[in-house]
Amino acid sequence: MEVVGVLGGMGPLATIDFMRKVLDATPAARDQDHVPMIVSCVPQIPDRTAAFRGEGGSPLAAIVACGRRLASAGADLIVMPCNTAHLWFEEVQEQLQRPMLHLVDAALHEALALAGAQARVGLLATDATIASGLYINRRLAETPPVQWLLPTAGEMLTLVMPGIEAVKAGQLQDGQALLADAARALRQRGAAALVLGCTEIPLVLDAAACGLPVVDATAALARLVVARAG
Amino acid sequence: MEVVGVLGGMGPLATIDFMRKVLDATPAARDQDHVPMIVSCVPQIPDRTAAFRGEGGSPLAAIVACGRRLASAGADLIVMPCNTAHLWFEEVQEQLQRPMLHLVDAALHEALALAGAQARVGLLATDATIASGLYINRRLAETPPVQWLLPTAGEMLTLVMPGIEAVKAGQLQDGQALLADAARALRQRGAAALVLGCTEIPLVLDAAACGLPVVDATAALARLVVARAG
Repeated sequence: MEVVGVLGGMGPLATIDFMRKVLDATPAARDQDHVPMIVSCVPQIPDRTAAFRGEGGSPLAAIVACGRRLASAGADLIVMPCNTAHLWFEEVQEQLQRPMLHLVDAALHEALALAGAQARVGLLATDATIASGLYINRRLAETPPVQWLLPTAGEMLTLVMPGIEAVKAGQLQDGQALLADAARALRQRGAAALVLGCTEIPLVLDAAACGLPVVDATAALARLVVARAG
Repeated sequence: MEVVGVLGGMGPLATIDFMRKVLDATPAARDQDHVPMIVSCVPQIPDRTAAFRGEGGSPLAAIVACGRRLASAGADLIVMPCNTAHLWFEEVQEQLQRPMLHLVDAALHEALALAGAQARVGLLATDATIASGLYINRRLAETPPVQWLLPTAGEMLTLVMPGIEAVKAGQLQDGQALLADAARALRQRGAAALVLGCTEIPLVLDAAACGLPVVDATAALARLVVARAG
Protein backbone atom coordinates (compact mmCIF):
# COMPACT_ATOMS: atom_id res chain seq x y z
CA MET A 1 0.00 0.00 0.00
CA GLU A 2 1.32 3.47 -0.89
CA VAL A 3 2.27 5.67 2.07
CA VAL A 4 0.42 8.98 1.82
CA GLY A 5 2.36 12.08 2.89
CA VAL A 6 0.11 14.75 4.36
CA LEU A 7 1.74 18.16 4.08
CA GLY A 8 -0.33 19.85 6.75
CA GLY A 9 -0.14 22.30 9.63
CA MET A 10 -1.97 24.90 7.51
CA GLY A 11 -3.68 24.98 10.00
CA PRO A 12 -3.21 22.09 12.42
CA LEU A 13 -6.93 21.66 13.14
CA ALA A 14 -7.62 21.31 9.42
CA THR A 15 -4.88 18.64 9.24
CA ILE A 16 -6.59 16.63 11.95
CA ASP A 17 -9.95 17.11 10.21
CA PHE A 18 -8.45 15.78 6.97
CA MET A 19 -6.97 12.71 8.72
CA ARG A 20 -10.35 12.01 10.31
CA LYS A 21 -12.04 12.25 6.91
CA VAL A 22 -9.53 9.77 5.45
CA LEU A 23 -10.46 7.33 8.23
CA ASP A 24 -14.18 7.96 7.67
CA ALA A 25 -13.80 7.30 3.93
CA THR A 26 -12.00 3.98 4.52
CA PRO A 27 -13.87 0.70 4.89
CA ALA A 28 -11.95 -0.77 7.84
CA ALA A 29 -12.72 -3.18 10.66
CA ARG A 30 -9.33 -3.02 12.38
CA ASP A 31 -6.33 -0.68 12.70
CA GLN A 32 -4.34 -2.48 10.03
CA ASP A 33 -6.96 -1.82 7.30
CA HIS A 34 -6.39 1.97 7.34
CA VAL A 35 -4.37 3.96 4.81
CA PRO A 36 -0.78 4.52 6.04
CA MET A 37 -0.03 8.23 6.43
CA ILE A 38 3.00 10.27 7.38
CA VAL A 39 1.88 13.71 8.46
CA SER A 40 3.77 16.95 8.70
CA CYS A 41 1.81 19.09 11.13
CA VAL A 42 4.46 21.81 11.36
CA PRO A 43 2.51 25.06 11.45
CA GLN A 44 5.55 27.37 11.34
CA ILE A 45 4.78 28.11 7.68
CA PRO A 46 4.29 31.77 6.72
CA ASP A 47 0.62 32.70 6.30
CA ARG A 48 -0.48 31.89 2.74
CA THR A 49 -3.10 34.61 2.46
CA ALA A 50 -0.74 37.31 3.80
CA ALA A 51 1.91 36.23 1.27
CA PHE A 52 -0.56 36.46 -1.62
CA ARG A 53 -1.52 39.96 -0.49
CA GLY A 54 2.14 40.98 -0.42
CA GLU A 55 1.88 41.50 3.34
CA GLY A 56 4.18 38.63 4.34
CA GLY A 57 6.96 36.40 3.06
CA SER A 58 6.41 33.47 0.71
CA PRO A 59 5.53 30.14 2.32
CA LEU A 60 7.14 28.20 -0.54
CA ALA A 61 10.46 27.36 1.12
CA ALA A 62 8.77 26.24 4.34
CA ILE A 63 6.21 24.13 2.46
CA VAL A 64 8.97 22.47 0.43
CA ALA A 65 10.99 21.84 3.62
CA CYS A 66 7.99 20.05 5.14
CA GLY A 67 7.52 18.10 1.91
CA ARG A 68 11.16 17.00 2.10
CA ARG A 69 10.55 15.77 5.66
CA LEU A 70 7.73 13.61 4.28
CA ALA A 71 9.85 12.35 1.40
CA SER A 72 12.65 11.45 3.86
CA ALA A 73 10.11 9.56 5.94
CA GLY A 74 9.12 7.49 2.92
CA ALA A 75 5.93 9.15 1.61
CA ASP A 76 5.11 7.90 -1.90
CA LEU A 77 2.39 10.44 -2.68
CA ILE A 78 1.84 13.91 -1.24
CA VAL A 79 -1.32 15.90 -0.54
CA MET A 80 -1.79 19.35 1.01
CA PRO A 81 -4.99 19.78 3.04
CA CYS A 82 -4.92 23.58 2.58
CA ASN A 83 -6.65 25.25 -0.34
CA THR A 84 -4.61 28.46 -0.35
CA ALA A 85 -1.32 26.53 -0.31
CA HIS A 86 -2.31 25.25 -3.75
CA LEU A 87 -1.29 28.64 -5.16
CA TRP A 88 2.22 27.17 -4.89
CA PHE A 89 1.23 23.61 -5.95
CA GLU A 90 3.18 23.49 -9.22
CA GLU A 91 6.34 24.88 -7.62
CA VAL A 92 6.09 22.49 -4.67
CA GLN A 93 5.57 19.51 -6.97
CA GLU A 94 8.49 20.53 -9.16
CA GLN A 95 10.82 20.85 -6.18
CA LEU A 96 9.68 17.68 -4.41
CA GLN A 97 9.60 15.46 -7.51
CA ARG A 98 6.89 13.28 -6.00
CA PRO A 99 3.38 12.51 -7.23
CA MET A 100 0.82 14.88 -5.68
CA LEU A 101 -2.98 15.00 -5.74
CA HIS A 102 -4.62 18.42 -6.25
CA LEU A 103 -7.31 19.36 -3.74
CA VAL A 104 -9.17 21.68 -6.12
CA ASP A 105 -9.50 18.94 -8.75
CA ALA A 106 -11.07 16.70 -6.11
CA ALA A 107 -13.53 19.48 -5.16
CA LEU A 108 -14.41 20.37 -8.79
CA HIS A 109 -15.15 16.75 -9.52
CA GLU A 110 -17.58 16.51 -6.61
CA ALA A 111 -19.14 19.94 -7.38
CA LEU A 112 -20.01 18.89 -10.95
CA ALA A 113 -21.35 15.54 -9.74
CA LEU A 114 -23.50 17.29 -7.12
CA ALA A 115 -24.81 20.37 -8.97
CA GLY A 116 -24.27 19.64 -12.67
CA ALA A 117 -22.91 22.15 -15.16
CA GLN A 118 -26.03 24.40 -15.28
CA ALA A 119 -26.51 25.31 -11.61
CA ARG A 120 -24.69 28.15 -9.95
CA VAL A 121 -22.21 27.04 -7.31
CA GLY A 122 -21.20 29.37 -4.48
CA LEU A 123 -17.58 29.43 -3.33
CA LEU A 124 -16.49 30.16 0.23
CA ALA A 125 -12.72 30.52 0.44
CA THR A 126 -9.95 32.92 1.49
CA ASP A 127 -9.50 36.08 -0.54
CA ALA A 128 -6.19 34.69 -1.83
CA THR A 129 -7.92 31.54 -3.11
CA ILE A 130 -10.66 33.59 -4.78
CA ALA A 131 -8.59 36.47 -6.15
CA SER A 132 -5.91 34.16 -7.52
CA GLY A 133 -8.46 32.25 -9.58
CA LEU A 134 -7.37 28.98 -7.98
CA TYR A 135 -10.89 27.55 -8.32
CA ILE A 136 -12.33 29.83 -11.01
CA ASN A 137 -9.60 29.26 -13.56
CA ARG A 138 -9.07 25.57 -12.92
CA ARG A 139 -10.74 23.14 -15.35
CA LEU A 140 -11.00 19.39 -15.27
CA ALA A 141 -10.17 17.78 -18.61
CA GLU A 142 -13.23 16.94 -20.72
CA THR A 143 -15.81 18.40 -18.37
CA PRO A 144 -17.86 21.60 -18.59
CA PRO A 145 -16.84 24.54 -16.37
CA VAL A 146 -18.53 25.15 -13.01
CA GLN A 147 -20.85 28.20 -12.97
CA TRP A 148 -19.34 30.03 -10.01
CA LEU A 149 -21.02 32.57 -7.74
CA LEU A 150 -18.63 34.50 -5.48
CA PRO A 151 -19.07 36.45 -2.23
CA THR A 152 -18.99 40.24 -2.68
CA ALA A 153 -15.93 42.21 -1.57
CA GLY A 154 -17.94 43.42 1.43
CA GLU A 155 -18.92 39.87 2.41
CA MET A 156 -15.30 38.75 2.08
CA LEU A 157 -14.14 41.57 4.35
CA THR A 158 -16.82 41.39 7.04
CA LEU A 159 -17.89 37.73 7.02
CA VAL A 160 -15.64 35.24 5.22
CA MET A 161 -12.14 36.32 6.27
CA PRO A 162 -13.07 37.15 9.90
CA GLY A 163 -14.94 33.82 10.04
CA ILE A 164 -11.89 31.86 8.88
CA GLU A 165 -9.62 33.75 11.29
CA ALA A 166 -11.99 33.03 14.19
CA VAL A 167 -11.84 29.30 13.42
CA LYS A 168 -8.03 29.40 13.27
CA ALA A 169 -8.03 31.06 16.70
CA GLY A 170 -10.31 28.35 18.12
CA GLN A 171 -13.36 30.62 18.37
CA LEU A 172 -15.56 28.12 16.59
CA GLN A 173 -18.97 29.60 17.44
CA ASP A 174 -18.03 33.08 16.24
CA GLY A 175 -16.55 31.59 13.10
CA GLN A 176 -19.67 29.55 12.45
CA ALA A 177 -22.00 32.55 12.79
CA LEU A 178 -19.96 34.67 10.36
CA LEU A 179 -19.54 31.91 7.78
CA ALA A 180 -23.21 30.88 7.96
CA ASP A 181 -24.14 34.50 7.14
CA ALA A 182 -21.85 34.39 4.12
CA ALA A 183 -23.44 31.10 2.98
CA ARG A 184 -26.92 32.59 3.39
CA ALA A 185 -26.00 35.56 1.18
CA LEU A 186 -24.82 33.22 -1.60
CA ARG A 187 -28.00 31.16 -1.32
CA GLN A 188 -30.14 34.29 -1.58
CA ARG A 189 -28.31 35.31 -4.76
CA GLY A 190 -29.12 31.95 -6.36
CA ALA A 191 -26.45 29.42 -5.39
CA ALA A 192 -27.79 25.86 -5.71
CA ALA A 193 -24.79 24.38 -3.90
CA LEU A 194 -21.67 25.58 -2.09
CA VAL A 195 -18.04 24.61 -2.24
CA LEU A 196 -16.32 24.98 1.14
CA GLY A 197 -12.97 25.90 -0.34
CA CYS A 198 -10.94 26.59 2.79
CA THR A 199 -10.11 23.75 5.18
CA GLU A 200 -11.17 25.81 8.21
CA ILE A 201 -14.75 26.22 6.92
CA PRO A 202 -16.03 22.61 7.12
CA LEU A 203 -14.84 22.56 10.74
CA VAL A 204 -17.89 24.71 11.54
CA LEU A 205 -20.25 24.57 8.51
CA ASP A 206 -22.15 21.71 6.91
CA ALA A 207 -25.12 21.38 4.56
CA ALA A 208 -27.59 21.79 7.43
CA ALA A 209 -25.96 25.02 8.62
CA CYS A 210 -25.83 26.37 5.03
CA GLY A 211 -29.31 25.29 3.98
CA LEU A 212 -27.71 24.03 0.75
CA PRO A 213 -25.88 20.94 -0.50
CA VAL A 214 -22.17 21.44 0.06
CA VAL A 215 -18.92 20.09 -1.31
CA ASP A 216 -16.38 19.85 1.50
CA ALA A 217 -13.06 20.19 -0.34
CA THR A 218 -11.23 18.51 2.58
CA ALA A 219 -13.50 15.46 2.41
CA ALA A 220 -13.24 15.39 -1.40
CA LEU A 221 -9.44 15.19 -1.13
CA ALA A 222 -9.74 12.50 1.57
CA ARG A 223 -11.99 10.39 -0.68
CA LEU A 224 -9.58 10.80 -3.58
CA VAL A 225 -6.70 9.66 -1.34
CA VAL A 226 -8.59 6.56 -0.21
CA ALA A 227 -9.61 5.71 -3.80
CA ARG A 228 -5.99 6.06 -4.92
CA ALA A 229 -4.45 4.22 -1.96
CA GLY A 230 -7.04 1.43 -1.86
CA MET B 1 11.04 24.80 18.99
CA GLU B 2 11.59 21.03 19.19
CA VAL B 3 9.79 18.97 16.56
CA VAL B 4 7.71 16.28 18.28
CA GLY B 5 7.56 12.90 16.54
CA VAL B 6 4.27 11.11 17.13
CA LEU B 7 4.69 7.38 16.67
CA GLY B 8 1.03 6.61 16.12
CA GLY B 9 -1.33 4.52 14.06
CA MET B 10 -2.03 2.32 17.11
CA GLY B 11 -4.89 2.93 16.29
CA PRO B 12 -5.28 5.83 13.87
CA LEU B 13 -8.29 7.34 15.64
CA ALA B 14 -6.31 7.49 18.88
CA THR B 15 -3.50 9.26 17.01
CA ILE B 16 -5.91 11.94 15.82
CA ASP B 17 -7.34 12.22 19.34
CA PHE B 18 -3.83 12.75 20.72
CA MET B 19 -3.04 15.45 18.12
CA ARG B 20 -6.28 17.21 18.97
CA LYS B 21 -5.39 17.10 22.69
CA VAL B 22 -1.98 18.63 21.95
CA LEU B 23 -3.74 21.51 20.18
CA ASP B 24 -6.24 21.86 23.04
CA ALA B 25 -3.40 22.02 25.59
CA THR B 26 -1.57 24.76 23.66
CA PRO B 27 -2.24 28.46 24.22
CA ALA B 28 -2.35 29.61 20.58
CA ALA B 29 -4.03 32.42 18.67
CA ARG B 30 -2.75 31.49 15.22
CA ASP B 31 -1.44 28.47 13.32
CA GLN B 32 2.20 29.37 13.88
CA ASP B 33 1.88 29.18 17.70
CA HIS B 34 1.23 25.43 17.69
CA VAL B 35 3.74 22.70 18.54
CA PRO B 36 5.37 21.32 15.36
CA MET B 37 4.66 17.61 14.97
CA ILE B 38 5.65 14.91 12.52
CA VAL B 39 3.22 12.03 12.78
CA SER B 40 3.52 8.44 11.69
CA CYS B 41 -0.03 7.19 11.32
CA VAL B 42 0.97 3.89 9.74
CA PRO B 43 -1.37 1.32 11.24
CA GLN B 44 0.22 -1.75 9.63
CA ILE B 45 1.82 -2.61 12.99
CA PRO B 46 1.07 -6.08 14.41
CA ASP B 47 -1.53 -6.00 17.17
CA ARG B 48 0.14 -5.28 20.50
CA THR B 49 -2.29 -7.22 22.67
CA ALA B 50 -2.19 -10.30 20.42
CA ALA B 51 1.63 -10.24 20.55
CA PHE B 52 1.64 -10.08 24.35
CA ARG B 53 -0.73 -13.06 24.46
CA GLY B 54 1.57 -15.04 22.17
CA GLU B 55 -1.15 -15.08 19.52
CA GLY B 56 0.63 -12.83 17.01
CA GLY B 57 4.05 -11.60 15.96
CA SER B 58 5.98 -8.90 17.80
CA PRO B 59 5.21 -5.31 16.80
CA LEU B 60 8.74 -4.19 17.74
CA ALA B 61 10.29 -4.15 14.26
CA ALA B 62 7.33 -2.26 12.77
CA ILE B 63 7.28 0.27 15.63
CA VAL B 64 11.01 0.88 15.24
CA ALA B 65 10.61 1.26 11.45
CA CYS B 66 7.97 3.96 12.04
CA GLY B 67 10.23 5.62 14.60
CA ARG B 68 13.02 5.69 12.01
CA ARG B 69 10.66 7.40 9.56
CA LEU B 70 10.10 10.09 12.20
CA ALA B 71 13.81 10.42 12.89
CA SER B 72 14.50 10.76 9.14
CA ALA B 73 11.86 13.49 8.99
CA GLY B 74 13.66 15.42 11.72
CA ALA B 75 11.75 14.59 14.92
CA ASP B 76 13.73 15.65 18.00
CA LEU B 77 11.59 13.88 20.58
CA ILE B 78 9.32 10.86 20.20
CA VAL B 79 6.05 9.90 21.89
CA MET B 80 3.77 6.90 21.37
CA PRO B 81 0.07 7.58 21.91
CA CYS B 82 -0.64 3.88 22.60
CA ASN B 83 -0.47 2.46 26.12
CA THR B 84 0.11 -1.17 25.16
CA ALA B 85 2.97 -0.23 22.80
CA HIS B 86 4.82 0.92 25.94
CA LEU B 87 5.52 -2.76 26.71
CA TRP B 88 8.27 -2.27 24.09
CA PHE B 89 9.22 1.29 25.18
CA GLU B 90 12.74 0.51 26.39
CA GLU B 91 13.61 -1.52 23.29
CA VAL B 92 12.19 1.14 20.97
CA GLN B 93 14.12 3.88 22.75
CA GLU B 94 17.33 1.88 22.66
CA GLN B 95 17.01 1.24 18.92
CA LEU B 96 15.94 4.78 17.99
CA GLN B 97 18.49 6.59 20.16
CA ARG B 98 16.16 9.59 20.53
CA PRO B 99 14.64 11.16 23.64
CA MET B 100 11.17 9.77 24.34
CA LEU B 101 8.44 10.69 26.82
CA HIS B 102 6.64 7.84 28.61
CA LEU B 103 2.85 7.93 28.51
CA VAL B 104 2.40 5.98 31.75
CA ASP B 105 4.60 8.43 33.68
CA ALA B 106 2.39 11.27 32.44
CA ALA B 107 -0.73 9.40 33.58
CA LEU B 108 0.73 8.40 37.01
CA HIS B 109 1.66 12.00 37.65
CA GLU B 110 -1.89 13.19 36.98
CA ALA B 111 -3.46 10.28 38.92
CA LEU B 112 -1.51 11.16 42.08
CA ALA B 113 -2.33 14.85 41.66
CA LEU B 114 -6.03 14.02 41.24
CA ALA B 115 -6.62 11.27 43.80
CA GLY B 116 -3.65 11.42 46.19
CA ALA B 117 -1.77 8.40 47.48
CA GLN B 118 -4.54 7.10 49.80
CA ALA B 119 -7.49 6.74 47.43
CA ARG B 120 -8.05 3.69 45.28
CA VAL B 121 -7.66 4.34 41.58
CA GLY B 122 -9.37 2.10 39.04
CA LEU B 123 -7.54 1.16 35.83
CA LEU B 124 -9.25 0.53 32.50
CA ALA B 125 -6.77 -0.83 29.97
CA THR B 126 -6.11 -3.77 27.65
CA ASP B 127 -5.35 -7.13 29.23
CA ALA B 128 -1.78 -6.84 27.93
CA THR B 129 -1.34 -3.48 29.69
CA ILE B 130 -2.78 -4.85 32.93
CA ALA B 131 -1.23 -8.32 32.95
CA SER B 132 2.21 -6.99 32.04
CA GLY B 133 2.22 -4.67 35.03
CA LEU B 134 2.87 -1.67 32.77
CA TYR B 135 0.97 0.62 35.14
CA ILE B 136 1.04 -1.44 38.33
CA ASN B 137 4.79 -1.90 38.48
CA ARG B 138 5.77 1.55 37.25
CA ARG B 139 6.81 4.07 39.91
CA LEU B 140 7.59 7.74 39.66
CA ALA B 141 10.76 8.73 41.49
CA GLU B 142 10.16 10.17 44.97
CA THR B 143 6.39 9.70 44.98
CA PRO B 144 4.21 7.18 46.79
CA PRO B 145 2.69 4.33 44.75
CA VAL B 146 -0.83 4.55 43.35
CA GLN B 147 -3.36 2.28 45.11
CA TRP B 148 -4.68 0.41 42.10
CA LEU B 149 -8.03 -1.32 41.72
CA LEU B 150 -8.32 -3.60 38.68
CA PRO B 151 -11.25 -5.02 36.71
CA THR B 152 -11.95 -8.71 37.40
CA ALA B 153 -11.00 -11.32 34.81
CA GLY B 154 -14.69 -11.63 33.93
CA GLU B 155 -15.04 -7.86 33.44
CA MET B 156 -11.93 -7.82 31.25
CA LEU B 157 -13.34 -10.62 29.10
CA THR B 158 -16.93 -9.44 28.75
CA LEU B 159 -16.67 -5.64 29.06
CA VAL B 160 -13.23 -4.05 28.71
CA MET B 161 -11.69 -5.95 25.79
CA PRO B 162 -14.92 -6.13 23.71
CA GLY B 163 -15.42 -2.41 24.44
CA ILE B 164 -11.96 -1.50 23.16
CA GLU B 165 -12.41 -3.70 20.08
CA ALA B 166 -15.77 -2.07 19.33
CA VAL B 167 -14.14 1.39 19.41
CA LYS B 168 -11.34 0.21 17.09
CA ALA B 169 -14.00 -1.05 14.66
CA GLY B 170 -15.79 2.32 14.76
CA GLN B 171 -18.77 1.01 16.77
CA LEU B 172 -18.53 3.83 19.28
CA GLN B 173 -21.93 3.45 20.96
CA ASP B 174 -21.43 -0.25 21.64
CA GLY B 175 -17.94 0.47 22.93
CA GLN B 176 -19.19 3.21 25.22
CA ALA B 177 -21.90 1.01 26.74
CA LEU B 178 -19.46 -1.81 27.52
CA LEU B 179 -16.74 0.45 28.93
CA ALA B 180 -19.20 2.48 31.02
CA ASP B 181 -20.35 -0.81 32.61
CA ALA B 182 -16.73 -1.64 33.45
CA ALA B 183 -16.25 1.84 34.97
CA ARG B 184 -19.41 1.41 37.06
CA ALA B 185 -18.15 -1.91 38.45
CA LEU B 186 -14.87 -0.28 39.57
CA ARG B 187 -16.77 2.60 41.18
CA GLN B 188 -18.99 0.16 43.08
CA ARG B 189 -15.90 -1.63 44.42
CA GLY B 190 -14.55 1.64 45.78
CA ALA B 191 -12.58 3.44 43.09
CA ALA B 192 -12.34 7.17 43.82
CA ALA B 193 -10.96 7.94 40.35
CA LEU B 194 -10.22 6.10 37.12
CA VAL B 195 -7.24 6.02 34.78
CA LEU B 196 -8.28 5.53 31.16
CA GLY B 197 -5.17 3.58 30.24
CA CYS B 198 -5.90 2.68 26.63
CA THR B 199 -6.08 5.39 23.98
CA GLU B 200 -9.34 4.03 22.56
CA ILE B 201 -11.19 4.49 25.89
CA PRO B 202 -11.26 8.32 26.17
CA LEU B 203 -12.71 8.40 22.65
CA VAL B 204 -16.00 7.27 24.23
CA LEU B 205 -15.71 7.74 28.02
CA ASP B 206 -15.27 10.85 30.16
CA ALA B 207 -15.80 11.74 33.81
CA ALA B 208 -19.52 12.32 33.26
CA ALA B 209 -20.00 8.88 31.65
CA CYS B 210 -17.96 7.22 34.44
CA GLY B 211 -19.49 9.09 37.36
CA LEU B 212 -15.92 9.54 38.66
CA PRO B 213 -12.96 11.87 38.10
CA VAL B 214 -10.80 10.42 35.34
CA VAL B 215 -7.23 10.68 34.15
CA ASP B 216 -7.14 10.49 30.38
CA ALA B 217 -3.68 9.06 29.69
CA THR B 218 -3.76 10.45 26.13
CA ALA B 219 -4.46 13.98 27.39
CA ALA B 220 -1.81 13.59 30.11
CA LEU B 221 0.80 12.77 27.46
CA ALA B 222 -0.40 15.69 25.32
CA ARG B 223 0.00 18.11 28.25
CA LEU B 224 3.48 16.74 28.96
CA VAL B 225 4.43 17.27 25.30
CA VAL B 226 3.20 20.87 25.34
CA ALA B 227 5.00 21.59 28.62
CA ARG B 228 8.21 20.14 27.20
CA ALA B 229 7.94 21.79 23.78
CA GLY B 230 6.78 25.19 25.09
